[in-house]
Amino acid sequence: SRSINLAVVPGDGIGQEVVAQGLKVLNAVLPQDVKLQTKEYDLGAQRWHRTGETLPDAELDSLKRHDAILLGAIGDPSVPSGVLERGLLLKLRFAFDHFINLRPSKLFPNTATPLAGRPDIDFVVVREGTEGPYTGNGGSIRTGTEHEVATEVSLNTAYGVERVVRDAYERAKARPRKKLTLVHKNNVLVHAGHMWKNIFDKVGQEYPEVTTDYLHVDAATIFFVTQPERFDVIVTDNLFGDILTDLAAAVTGGIGLAASGNINPTGAFPSMFEPVHGSAPDIAGQGKADPTATILSVALLLRHLGFETEAGRIEAAVSADLAERDGGTVRTTDEIGDALAVRVAG
Amino acid sequence: SRSINLAVVPGDGIGQEVVAQGLKVLNAVLPQDVKLQTKEYDLGAQRWHRTGETLPDAELDSLKRHDAILLGAIGDPSVPSGVLERGLLLKLRFAFDHFINLRPSKLFPNTATPLAGRPDIDFVVVREGTEGPYTGNGGSIRTGTEHEVATEVSLNTAYGVERVVRDAYERAKARPRKKLTLVHKNNVLVHAGHMWKNIFDKVGQEYPEVTTDYLHVDAATIFFVTQPERFDVIVTDNLFGDILTDLAAAVTGGIGLAASGNINPTGAFPSMFEPVHGSAPDIAGQGKADPTATILSVALLLRHLGFETEAGRIEAAVSADLAERDGGTVRTTDEIGDALAVRVAG
Ligand SMILES: CC(C)[C@H](C(=O)O)[C@@H](O)C(=O)O
Ligand SMILES: CC(C)[C@H](C(=O)O)[C@@H](O)C(=O)O
Repeated sequence: SRSINLAVVPGDGIGQEVVAQGLKVLNAVLPQDVKLQTKEYDLGAQRWHRTGETLPDAELDSLKRHDAILLGAIGDPSVPSGVLERGLLLKLRFAFDHFINLRPSKLFPNTATPLAGRPDIDFVVVREGTEGPYTGNGGSIRTGTEHEVATEVSLNTAYGVERVVRDAYERAKARPRKKLTLVHKNNVLVHAGHMWKNIFDKVGQEYPEVTTDYLHVDAATIFFVTQPERFDVIVTDNLFGDILTDLAAAVTGGIGLAASGNINPTGAFPSMFEPVHGSAPDIAGQGKADPTATILSVALLLRHLGFETEAGRIEAAVSADLAERDGGTVRTTDEIGDALAVRVAG
Repeated sequence: SRSINLAVVPGDGIGQEVVAQGLKVLNAVLPQDVKLQTKEYDLGAQRWHRTGETLPDAELDSLKRHDAILLGAIGDPSVPSGVLERGLLLKLRFAFDHFINLRPSKLFPNTATPLAGRPDIDFVVVREGTEGPYTGNGGSIRTGTEHEVATEVSLNTAYGVERVVRDAYERAKARPRKKLTLVHKNNVLVHAGHMWKNIFDKVGQEYPEVTTDYLHVDAATIFFVTQPERFDVIVTDNLFGDILTDLAAAVTGGIGLAASGNINPTGAFPSMFEPVHGSAPDIAGQGKADPTATILSVALLLRHLGFETEAGRIEAAVSADLAERDGGTVRTTDEIGDALAVRVAG
């Protein structure tokens, strides 16, 4: 019989609340014969305050033995900026070699978008997850003095770029429009940018059915608001992907709906699924957080583990729920989770 | 008697056309007693094809002797990406130590914005212009092979950050709302990010009247489309500024209206004014380009040289022209220039 051995990292702020709803919907959608086992990990701001630890080796080893990880949100104003992000969230992405950071963007019917004219938005960003300016390479001298010099080094390898570019071509090939856009800044970041572009062109020869395009990151932001319907699959570097996917979330109804997967497609390590939003400490514990992004991340998780039907059921439920949402009534985190759990079970 | 000794670099694509209109309006707005002298520099794609040169030392020396530079646009698909950008445009910004890259964003009445609800947008981005990932620091090994490694180094100095931060505080202090937002990514780029934040906080102590705020660059893109009215002055690094100002242009009616100044406030070198848009080779020579961004850049140029009244006259003329623009009639580049020249003279 089938089983899922899931690690759960609620994390900080609204993480706890939204993850609870994700698990509720996961339980509701799974067929009876699938055995779901979950183990919760106490990681995040509270743990750090208590013990000074972000992600001890023993925890990392234990996490490695799961089929997948569901994560809520990491980060709290009481912790210096970067400590939890780099010591926990990015450490997981790097340790488990999550080189595909998958972020679909879809404007669901009836959801609010800041864009006039409600363009037809349905694209997916394949963000590189293990290189670029995220490797922690850099430093500073004479720190805190008027002579300080600080560097940040973007590290890029042909190996790292080729595998994410290839994955993006595969995804583009599998979609009806078969279009892939590379976003970089190769007129300024010429070394990394030209390597990305060369590999993009070279791998593209194996995918004659995929139409390709290149945009500088600054120009891409323009099209995100003026012509988002032009995008199908986008492949880009770690930092540009970070920026573009927040913007994508904003134009498709907000960060409350944006799901993501940190994926290692080789299966060598568990993949990790999380909403794009942060821990939102200002609304934590008040039942105000929209758990939909986490629930859609659960759909990505299920698809990654081979539960395509169940993933589709969650996405259809979200779509139907959004279509029937009535702008006047504000539902709690729990109520949205309940409504979606009912729909997927039904 | 007063005089302006102006260097003109039309550059590539639509550069020639829009600069011609900028000069037309400049001539029309200047009082009779101001002697305007211009010298045109043949720099850009054609020069490079002819001679292989981007910006020879003799030209750089000659440019240095002007009061200011008006630049159209640089870049052409026939030239490898980066050659003209780095060898000419960025070379000018670095050689003349243009540490303030000033980019105002205003949603003029009656102009099209992709945003529903037409928010009240009026902010200015103070983008650092001489550091960050733009210094050309980086390289690659085993280039073109499957073992290639490419780096891009972001270089940041306390000296460079403090002077741009201070300039931004001054600008914020002079505006009615007196609000300054720092945009960086200090939860990931911890070395550069913390230096920026520390200097931002330190300098802020000298400006108790200025309200401050910090946003990660990804979150900032969200607010650019959902709440752009929250911004007054933004200070940010070279690359984040590049990205944010294209997005700002998009939400305020497009890149046809976005002006910029590459400013060295010390006066040690001439400052350079240019539209934010590129050379748009697809529409070059057809009279389709909107010269308004260049004309607004001329206003920034005049203000920089102390012609505040004339700068204000150009901005008022653009405002009035936009308010009367009739969406149905498409005017040529020349017609828009003529209309604005008439208005500023009137
Ligand atoms: C919290 C932060 C480190 C993270 C990132 O920059 O990747 C977040 O913004 C995201 O997009 O998942
Ligand atoms: C052309 C390019 C080098 C330039 C930049 O990246 O600064 C442009 O995008 C700009 O914003 O002025």
